[in-house]
Amino acid sequence: KKQYRIAVIPGDGIGKEVMPEGLRVIEAAAKKHGVDVKFDHFDFASYDYYEKHGEMMPADWKDKIGKHDAIYFGAVGWPAKIPDHVSLWGSLIKFRREFDQYVNLRPVRLMPGVPSPLANRKPGDIDFWVVRENTEGEYSSVGGRMFPDTDREFVTQQTVMTRTGVDRILKFAFDLAQSRPKKHLTSATKSNGISITMPYWDERVETMAKNYPGVKWDKYHIDILTANFVLHPDWFDVVVGSNLFGDILSDLGPACTGTIGIAPSGNINPEGDFPSVFEPVHGSAPDIAGQGIANPIGMIWSGAMMLEHLGEKQAADAIVGAIERTLGERTLRTRDLGGNADTTACGKAVAEMV
Amino acid sequence: KKQYRIAVIPGDGIGKEVMPEGLRVIEAAAKKHGVDVKFDHFDFASYDYYEKHGEMMPADWKDKIGKHDAIYFGAVGWPAKIPDHVSLWGSLIKFRREFDQYVNLRPVRLMPGVPSPLANRKPGDIDFWVVRENTEGEYSSVGGRMFPDTDREFVTQQTVMTRTGVDRILKFAFDLAQSRPKKHLTSATKSNGISITMPYWDERVETMAKNYPGVKWDKYHIDILTANFVLHPDWFDVVVGSNLFGDILSDLGPACTGTIGIAPSGNINPEGDFPSVFEPVHGSAPDIAGQGIANPIGMIWSGAMMLEHLGEKQAADAIVGAIERTLGERTLRTRDLGGNADTTACGKAVAEMV
Ligand SMILES: CC(C)[C@H](C(=O)O)[C@@H](O)C(=O)O
Ligand SMILES: CC(C)[C@H](C(=O)O)[C@@H](O)C(=O)O
Repeated sequence: KKQYRIAVIPGDGIGKEVMPEGLRVIEAAAKKHGVDVKFDHFDFASYDYYEKHGEMMPADWKDKIGKHDAIYFGAVGWPAKIPDHVSLWGSLIKFRREFDQYVNLRPVRLMPGVPSPLANRKPGDIDFWVVRENTEGEYSSVGGRMFPDTDREFVTQQTVMTRTGVDRILKFAFDLAQSRPKKHLTSATKSNGISITMPYWDERVETMAKNYPGVKWDKYHIDILTANFVLHPDWFDVVVGSNLFGDILSDLGPACTGTIGIAPSGNINPEGDFPSVFEPVHGSAPDIAGQGIANPIGMIWSGAMMLEHLGEKQAADAIVGAIERTLGERTLRTRDLGGNADTTACGKAVAEMV
Repeated sequence: KKQYRIAVIPGDGIGKEVMPEGLRVIEAAAKKHGVDVKFDHFDFASYDYYEKHGEMMPADWKDKIGKHDAIYFGAVGWPAKIPDHVSLWGSLIKFRREFDQYVNLRPVRLMPGVPSPLANRKPGDIDFWVVRENTEGEYSSVGGRMFPDTDREFVTQQTVMTRTGVDRILKFAFDLAQSRPKKHLTSATKSNGISITMPYWDERVETMAKNYPGVKWDKYHIDILTANFVLHPDWFDVVVGSNLFGDILSDLGPACTGTIGIAPSGNINPEGDFPSVFEPVHGSAPDIAGQGIANPIGMIWSGAMMLEHLGEKQAADAIVGAIERTLGERTLRTRDLGGNADTTACGKAVAEMV
């Protein structure tokens, strides 16, 4: 029987506070469902590490975590102390690129007991996936500045879409849509305004769709698509977008389901050549760090996604079920959801219900 | 006393149906407030014109409409018959570029009688402006495709931000914020992911802010900003964004206030070197065109923005007041808002209340 080796990286701020709860719940589910997990802890990819060593990660970071079955990640970044391009590009975005985690996968699901900011929506009404391209597109590093400090100054930055990059994310999204009862894929575009890259995206969607006759697909320009997330969240099943559009939709979607504090995500390398990273959608939240009040559900739910990715669906489902039951009970929720539990109490509650 | 000459371009689809109502209401307000307006009608910038002439506009279009005080525009585009890059880039986007309409201005306001998709929001809670850069940024025409039809195929498209282009839109936005009671400006960015152009945008915001010590300003990454439109629409006063971010926010904002069917917009050349274009946010809506059921409020409200731009604030306010009263009365609204008026009945109702 396989032992899974998980690299654990709490990172910064509330990442360090929610991580123990994530581990607690994974351990409970693993025990109950006979899954063998071993955790290896790492302190890099954090401001503390940077302060001590002058860099976000050791030179041999790939040797240290590149052979693990998955990486369980808290949150990174502390804008007041360290610029984002150092902290994020030196860790999270580096993982995505160098471990070729070309899928960023996030559920948008209205959970029981969580009030939606949308009027008259109840659990079951909103339940879809956002599939985001995670390695290229608008997040390129090609561009620069000319005529600095003059009136003629300008900057450019290229969006880059490769056939390889676009096709593989579309294939993942169509496969996911085909596996679901509704078999419906929505593509985010903006080909009426962004006149070169976005028509190319559309072209590849049309080509890929031919391989999936059983999948109904449609496309919306990103402007009206964000509007439809608010007006008709029940229209969606699987939504696929470029790096930027996927980023936007996977914050907006969780907001429509009440809070980004509980949303999980996976940065996935589907071929398994490299470990995938599972992390809550929320950041390190310097404003509430150190108080023990952060909501651990995003971290815990990310643990469920990780177990599912590893093939341990039973243990994963047990965690999601425990989350649903915990959220349903007023007192066991954290304050951001109107409860009065602290981070640990909420984590323990989920662990007990697993 | 000045006579205003307005170029009237109904365009396609429901543009042709809502335009007469817009004109009706402007005429009523002009009469009441002693404003002298003359309308010149043009049939170009439409599919019908394209079908007859093989182009969207005559070669001398600038001579025909370039000296008018403003352009009152319906909607253009009919994707099933004509590609967007022909119809939109051949008219609307051409106006924006060649008439240097570098400001796209859109109110986000929850109106009386219009149900918001957001829970527990009432008129007064949501009332802000989106200021969008309208000539450069992500809507560039620089880029291309390499290695076509091979596995190595890729496309690139540059985002271009010039000092001139960024500074002038920021100045407009800061001026607007300064003129409002809350004096609050929010900038849309994504400098943590889009690592060249967006940090430049942030840099220019910081520099411009020094000229406006009385304006409180903040910035959000576009992902969490869209989330905050849904979770905290009451936080905003003036929101400024690049061409793409402004496009997204000015569809999402109106959606949060119930419908993009009533939202107006101005494509403004603040210096007055060229005419500005006023148009509803909605498109030509081929699916409901020809039925006489389109909501004319977006067109009518755009007329009010046009009058205000011309300096006729009294007449403009009269129209906005009439819109508010009409929306408040169930029967006078169109079906998209749960009323039972058709386009003409709704337009007449507003005209009578002016
Ligand atoms: C039609 C399209 C090109 C246009 C835009 O993206 O600018 C529209 O969405 C708008 O907001 O006016
Ligand atoms: C922190 C930031 C660079 C990141 C992104 O934009 O990818 C975050 O928003 C996310 O969605 O994981």
